Amino acid sequence: MARQLSDDLKLFSGTSHPGLAKRICDWLDIPLGRVRFERFANDNLFVQIEENVREKDVFVLQTASAPVNEHLVELCIMLDALKHASAARITAIIPYYFYVRSDKKDMPRISITARLVADLLQTAGADRVLTMTLHSGQIQGFFDIPTDQLSAIPLVCDYFEGWDLSDFVVVAPDAGSARRAGAYANRLGLPLAVGDKRRESDRDVVIKGIVGDVEGQKALIFDDEIATAGSMLRLAEFLRDRCGVEEVYAGAAHGVLVGPALERLSRPLFRRTVVTDSLPLPEGAEAANIEQVSVAKLFGRAIHAIHTGESVSALFR
Amino acid sequence: MARQLSDDLKLFSGTSHPGLAKRICDWLDIPLGRVRFERFANDNLFVQIEENVREKDVFVLQTASAPVNEHLVELCIMLDALKHASAARITAIIPYYFYVRSDKKDMPRISITARLVADLLQTAGADRVLTMTLHSGQIQGFFDIPTDQLSAIPLVCDYFEGWDLSDFVVVAPDAGSARRAGAYANRLGLPLAVGDKRRESDRDVVIKGIVGDVEGQKALIFDDEIATAGSMLRLAEFLRDRCGVEEVYAGAAHGVLVGPALERLSRPLFRRTVVTDSLPLPEGAEAANIEQVSVAKLFGRAIHAIHTGESVSALFR
Amino acid sequence: MARQLSDDLKLFSGTSHPGLAKRICDWLDIPLGRVRFERFANDNLFVQIEENVREKDVFVLQTASAPVNEHLVELCIMLDALKHASAARITAIIPYYFYVRSDKKDMPRISITARLVADLLQTAGADRVLTMTLHSGQIQGFFDIPTDQLSAIPLVCDYFEGWDLSDFVVVAPDAGSARRAGAYANRLGLPLAVGDKRRESDRDVVIKGIVGDVEGQKALIFDDEIATAGSMLRLAEFLRDRCGVEEVYAGAAHGVLVGPALERLSRPLFRRTVVTDSLPLPEGAEAANIEQVSVAKLFGRAIHAIHTGESVSALFR
Amino acid sequence: MARQLSDDLKLFSGTSHPGLAKRICDWLDIPLGRVRFERFANDNLFVQIEENVREKDVFVLQTASAPVNEHLVELCIMLDALKHASAARITAIIPYYFYVRSDKKDMPRISITARLVADLLQTAGADRVLTMTLHSGQIQGFFDIPTDQLSAIPLVCDYFEGWDLSDFVVVAPDAGSARRAGAYANRLGLPLAVGDKRRESDRDVVIKGIVGDVEGQKALIFDDEIATAGSMLRLAEFLRDRCGVEEVYAGAAHGVLVGPALERLSRPLFRRTVVTDSLPLPEGAEAANIEQVSVAKLFGRAIHAIHTGESVSALFR
Amino acid sequence: MARQLSDDLKLFSGTSHPGLAKRICDWLDIPLGRVRFERFANDNLFVQIEENVREKDVFVLQTASAPVNEHLVELCIMLDALKHASAARITAIIPYYFYVRSDKKDMPRISITARLVADLLQTAGADRVLTMTLHSGQIQGFFDIPTDQLSAIPLVCDYFEGWDLSDFVVVAPDAGSARRAGAYANRLGLPLAVGDKRRESDRDVVIKGIVGDVEGQKALIFDDEIATAGSMLRLAEFLRDRCGVEEVYAGAAHGVLVGPALERLSRPLFRRTVVTDSLPLPEGAEAANIEQVSVAKLFGRAIHAIHTGESVSALFR
Amino acid sequence: MARQLSDDLKLFSGTSHPGLAKRICDWLDIPLGRVRFERFANDNLFVQIEENVREKDVFVLQTASAPVNEHLVELCIMLDALKHASAARITAIIPYYFYVRSDKKDMPRISITARLVADLLQTAGADRVLTMTLHSGQIQGFFDIPTDQLSAIPLVCDYFEGWDLSDFVVVAPDAGSARRAGAYANRLGLPLAVGDKRRESDRDVVIKGIVGDVEGQKALIFDDEIATAGSMLRLAEFLRDRCGVEEVYAGAAHGVLVGPALERLSRPLFRRTVVTDSLPLPEGAEAANIEQVSVAKLFGRAIHAIHTGESVSALFR
Repeated sequence: MARQLSDDLKLFSGTSHPGLAKRICDWLDIPLGRVRFERFANDNLFVQIEENVREKDVFVLQTASAPVNEHLVELCIMLDALKHASAARITAIIPYYFYVRSDKKDMPRISITARLVADLLQTAGADRVLTMTLHSGQIQGFFDIPTDQLSAIPLVCDYFEGWDLSDFVVVAPDAGSARRAGAYANRLGLPLAVGDKRRESDRDVVIKGIVGDVEGQKALIFDDEIATAGSMLRLAEFLRDRCGVEEVYAGAAHGVLVGPALERLSRPLFRRTVVTDSLPLPEGAEAANIEQVSVAKLFGRAIHAIHTGESVSALFR
Repeated sequence: MARQLSDDLKLFSGTSHPGLAKRICDWLDIPLGRVRFERFANDNLFVQIEENVREKDVFVLQTASAPVNEHLVELCIMLDALKHASAARITAIIPYYFYVRSDKKDMPRISITARLVADLLQTAGADRVLTMTLHSGQIQGFFDIPTDQLSAIPLVCDYFEGWDLSDFVVVAPDAGSARRAGAYANRLGLPLAVGDKRRESDRDVVIKGIVGDVEGQKALIFDDEIATAGSMLRLAEFLRDRCGVEEVYAGAAHGVLVGPALERLSRPLFRRTVVTDSLPLPEGAEAANIEQVSVAKLFGRAIHAIHTGESVSALFR
Repeated sequence: MARQLSDDLKLFSGTSHPGLAKRICDWLDIPLGRVRFERFANDNLFVQIEENVREKDVFVLQTASAPVNEHLVELCIMLDALKHASAARITAIIPYYFYVRSDKKDMPRISITARLVADLLQTAGADRVLTMTLHSGQIQGFFDIPTDQLSAIPLVCDYFEGWDLSDFVVVAPDAGSARRAGAYANRLGLPLAVGDKRRESDRDVVIKGIVGDVEGQKALIFDDEIATAGSMLRLAEFLRDRCGVEEVYAGAAHGVLVGPALERLSRPLFRRTVVTDSLPLPEGAEAANIEQVSVAKLFGRAIHAIHTGESVSALFR
Repeated sequence: MARQLSDDLKLFSGTSHPGLAKRICDWLDIPLGRVRFERFANDNLFVQIEENVREKDVFVLQTASAPVNEHLVELCIMLDALKHASAARITAIIPYYFYVRSDKKDMPRISITARLVADLLQTAGADRVLTMTLHSGQIQGFFDIPTDQLSAIPLVCDYFEGWDLSDFVVVAPDAGSARRAGAYANRLGLPLAVGDKRRESDRDVVIKGIVGDVEGQKALIFDDEIATAGSMLRLAEFLRDRCGVEEVYAGAAHGVLVGPALERLSRPLFRRTVVTDSLPLPEGAEAANIEQVSVAKLFGRAIHAIHTGESVSALFR
Repeated sequence: MARQLSDDLKLFSGTSHPGLAKRICDWLDIPLGRVRFERFANDNLFVQIEENVREKDVFVLQTASAPVNEHLVELCIMLDALKHASAARITAIIPYYFYVRSDKKDMPRISITARLVADLLQTAGADRVLTMTLHSGQIQGFFDIPTDQLSAIPLVCDYFEGWDLSDFVVVAPDAGSARRAGAYANRLGLPLAVGDKRRESDRDVVIKGIVGDVEGQKALIFDDEIATAGSMLRLAEFLRDRCGVEEVYAGAAHGVLVGPALERLSRPLFRRTVVTDSLPLPEGAEAANIEQVSVAKLFGRAIHAIHTGESVSALFR
Repeated sequence: MARQLSDDLKLFSGTSHPGLAKRICDWLDIPLGRVRFERFANDNLFVQIEENVREKDVFVLQTASAPVNEHLVELCIMLDALKHASAARITAIIPYYFYVRSDKKDMPRISITARLVADLLQTAGADRVLTMTLHSGQIQGFFDIPTDQLSAIPLVCDYFEGWDLSDFVVVAPDAGSARRAGAYANRLGLPLAVGDKRRESDRDVVIKGIVGDVEGQKALIFDDEIATAGSMLRLAEFLRDRCGVEEVYAGAAHGVLVGPALERLSRPLFRRTVVTDSLPLPEGAEAANIEQVSVAKLFGRAIHAIHTGESVSALFR
């Protein structure tokens, strides 16, 4: 694929994940756009785009790493600055989408914040959004502007290429994630099992059993994201204690990996955890046996297609 | 509950389901609003609201029965007429939502039509929407206006009150519906099993097995809607042929029931099918052993709460 | 005129009038865009654009033939799919506009549906509209987006080129259509007469006389559309019985031609009826002495001008 | 009809027609709201609403008298001030609507300014519009907000109550106004004739004849507005010179009456001209035999109905 | 003033300044609304309104204290939750407005973030805004919704009531704040002096002199906010070293008071600093001789007036 | 700088200041676009763009000279005509912005008309705005569309290039204009003094003194605009009578110059007044010792940069 791009393409990065932005720019062979970030004494942010963007095709990368709200507002300010600086088109690149799990109203008087974020981004100036592996596909319907959703599933599955997976079974943590885990199982050609979780009280959810046959197998637990790895640990221990599973492998598109996550995933029961670099990897992740596969090329190809008007879906068939 | 309502409340019905509108009005003890529907020679609809609605709190009922697009446009025209006739507030009541399953972009260059419908309704004049059991909860996030989603699950479950369900298991047709079926299982206190469907080719999906233990049990298959009952029949036959299940009961919020559905559900394997009256029941349904439970009171209570400013969620706790 | 067009121009057709779309594409010498239409068991439509439209200049043709609401919703879904598929610009081509006669509020609490349709199309994704011979010119004011209105009058008049029209008079069916018929009379250089219709009761409108001199002449009755041809027949019979008119010719931009229209127009009193192919011609029309003149070139030239940024009005001077 | 109105109703007047505002307030028995108008040295207007309007139901009267653009901008500024002063609802009362004849695009690259005005008023803060006898009914479709259009026709016709009209004929100036004049003819039970105007050159329009029988009758010429009375004079002279008409009476909803209008209408051929007070009467009008009938009660009743939520259409049946 | 308020008034508080919310509720004699705040492992916020707000007149207090962006997003989420929970009207109370100093584009390609915030709040659901002492009055023009701006100037001036101010002069830190300081000087009846600051290089601004007579006087330095007190200290030292000023008093509407502010203001040169409680007072402020005057009653009266539809401006005359 | 511009650039002028439009076109070496302006008998404007603008990059110049509201509405009509004529992008060039001083709500129930104008222009069709020296920088925040604000300060200062300014002092008329005058002082390297104006009563403002040292100096009074020159005269006389200033020079971006302005500025005390041609110069200005410096090149360069996508800020560094 020819990667010569016109000078009209610009990529700027917020402060959430400059490493990924750099890797994408390297793949695209363009320089990262210059931005100045400052913080006033009253904690207000100040952002200045330091190069001309008039009539340019501008991409801005920001991912929902902590502190999430700082990054969200920073992104909005960048979008606003770019819009009023007369950019021709502004695409927000959000590898791990903001408030991606706040996508429905399962309690009274709460906010479907993933929709709110979509509206805020459009208000601030986004003309398009490019994201990856949303918690639910419906979130694309939250946008009035064109969106492209890339999938981390092929990347994560590719990690296991060449492995002998004959005694592996894919396990979905619960009924709600069965569809997602099913997509992994489909691609890897493996059987699927589902954790049967039930709500015991207001706060407690317990695993009642595993729907499907996992006895003596090796388990591949897939979810869209791993945060504290708490439910993953409980499931892994259940699989070990009740089903004789001795090896657990974990995979997810988004490695949030906060709090006790690294300690938990470094326990011997977990042989390997695979995530993408949609979020920066915390220090100590390698020691916890966590592998990061890069989405830089994936996003690079999508940006190229968006910029040149080629089909994005065609690229990833 | 006191049902005295001010004269400011008006309920009009489109032509999709006047029976339900009448039942709700009866429960609310208000007359159904007068509307005139005509069709010009050029197939254009003509709608006239035949009573004063200035400053009234107006509700309009239309459900997505066939012909779906006729009913959708008719609803939009009613909303527009009401808005320009100076109604104070207009709530669209849509028991079975339009294009409810077109809620994500799982193929390139398709429309998330459930979102489009939300936008069209707002454009036409809807200030609020009241609906029931959406295919996915995220659809509420498609609206910029307040929505209330009622649940048919308690009503359908109540049908089985008093039954001995000790050898029943709830079966979800596939991974994608596991969460939904899980809600039924939770409420009935029954175990859950999940159909393991795999896509064999572009067109064919086959059942590879049942995840979970159903051997010799009676199966309760729950889904959000039953259209042709084709996949339900395949699952029931699989349960019978492979798992020794001899009695199958089907339940769904929405009884679309088209084409061969009645014939299929009247086969001996199906002992009973329970749906609500969110859609009109086709003729011959009783002969097919289909029971309809009414949502009239459920909607009546919600309308009452919306009109008087009481909590809708509190009513259904 | 050079008709070489860049690859950036795409024309898709809804299911209302593929014949006209094909004729326009032939004139433009471009292939018709590929679209897939399906209908789910629950009567919901499914539309997939089957070729890349990113950054393309896309035109979608749909005309308001019956079933009108099916075609309207189908058009909205196509527009939505194209918008989210990142088309650069989307022009809805609507030769016979939806709800074109619902353009004013001449009764209380009705919808000005022609305006509602304009809003729905914009909501769904139309950036421009190209249409022909609206019932009233004011309908262009219903749009917030640029519109181009082509005129069928020259095409219909051209049909009579070379005829000896020395004893012809143009007759407008009633005062409301006098302006429209006057445009035909002006172009053909003929005198004008106007039917004097009066409302006798709520339902009945009768012809009280003809304002103007038609005695012994041949009558050319022009209107914007012919649906059942009922009022045209009444007028023609009045002209025959009271004014000694023995030959009647009818002309209209839009041949809706439903119900008894063909039978009526095939009566000997009507010597010829001329319409355009803004709507598909019903079977049997030729036998009824109905001639269809094609708008394919007219639309083709307009599309060409819109695509290349030439003046549309200049083309038709 | 009880005219007791809550304190929540406020009526303010722009500077275009305070006399009418005062007459309406008198009929409603409410005081006219206090506003301060000033003009800065740089010709910018300054408007201050001088009484509290929070949560009030506010009406603002401005009519399109000259200088039209001054009055339009003044109205926009008043609407903006009221909106930001937290009025509960703002109804713009525009007896003679701005740019009412700029309602279609009959030349290339012109503005449908009547639509633009609708948008400007909504942008400035109007929640509703109340107007009278629009040049075309379609103009109501230019608004996204509720509108009420009152009719001056009954008022103007009532002026002739008790007259012997047996040898009168209603004459429409041209085909374009035939529908409008027909409404007068219908109400007065008189026959209709239509001026047959043709465009001779770019600038000149000549009367070629009268379609219909006027010989020796008295003519009632009705139009929606009388500006310079130029075309009315030409028509009257044609009727006198060619058709033996000796008495001409003129009527219109809106008496713009500028330039040579008074001189023309004071000629002996015109026996009487009837207009409403939708516009202020110029000095000298009485001497020109011009009678003004007041719309104060008509607007008063409409305002009352809008404020109390009664049907406006019911009032004027 | 009667403070009996209907049950329809609700006041909720974000986490930025619950103390002020409580004081306002106490003054209004209403309970503070219940809200639940949580933070997920992925740093996403979760907000649930814990009481029914249907058709209520809801106020939400959030001030721009650090962490500013957390508080801004939290406010947006609360607004969104309230809007979709069908609140009748939502007023955002923002004593110290977000990004209040980012109100103009004095460098290329920056964001006027105070305007962006206005848009975000409206998108999230705010129907009105109530704020205090904006950095510039023009910021009210950033809102499309009604706003009320209260003034802290009377409160701060009242603090000095009863003092002998005969040898005091008000000093504005620079030309840009001269207008603001002038308002204090006007109210206290004192003369005004202005710091003459000049930009020496890209980063350095130095005081070149004092415009006006301060020799041997006591200085009252007023600004809209005090953040690090850096420029205030430099000005105070200049006044002491160059102009013989021995006592300096500082006043501001908003006490941001971060970093070295407390240490600086506790130096002997500063005799007293007066701020309001628009922001929470940091610990140790009393030791730094900082007095806080409360805005609780000021906001309480404004909320009361907004709720009951009385004039807000009348209250503060 | 190369000034070859593509044919896609068009500049049209309203009737407010065709001279400036012509000078800009000359500098750009393009012809002025053809427009037809007429006024109907009812005082409504009619505007027709007389050349094709499809897909063109269109600029429209209109300045806020008297009659201001005529020019504002004329501009809106031009924008609307251009938008519906399918211009690719429309930039309103407004050298002296409409209602530029109505930028804040310093009295109850008034309009921030500068914001209203921004909204009206966007509604009418403006995609961008290019203006010069706004009364306050915050006005840029009133726009949701990109704006460029040019500065007249360098042009006005350049007029004094080569002068010996060693005994000059810049005087700001009052505290509110201190920041603005400071910018002139900074650029010219001169000291700054500020008029100390106080409000004596509702109507009267008096100069109490001059803050800063002007004794025996020559005064350069700068403001953003000069209208009647009344306050300038009072200040000049105060400087002469109280401070021994014998020569006064006045400068402003915008020369409104109405009423007694010319007489006042022609008094011997005023040695020279410098303004730009953002407004047409009234007759007799030269006799009043008023010099006009042209902004044609300034605007020409900005238009060129906007059209070609170069940085506007870079041009004026």
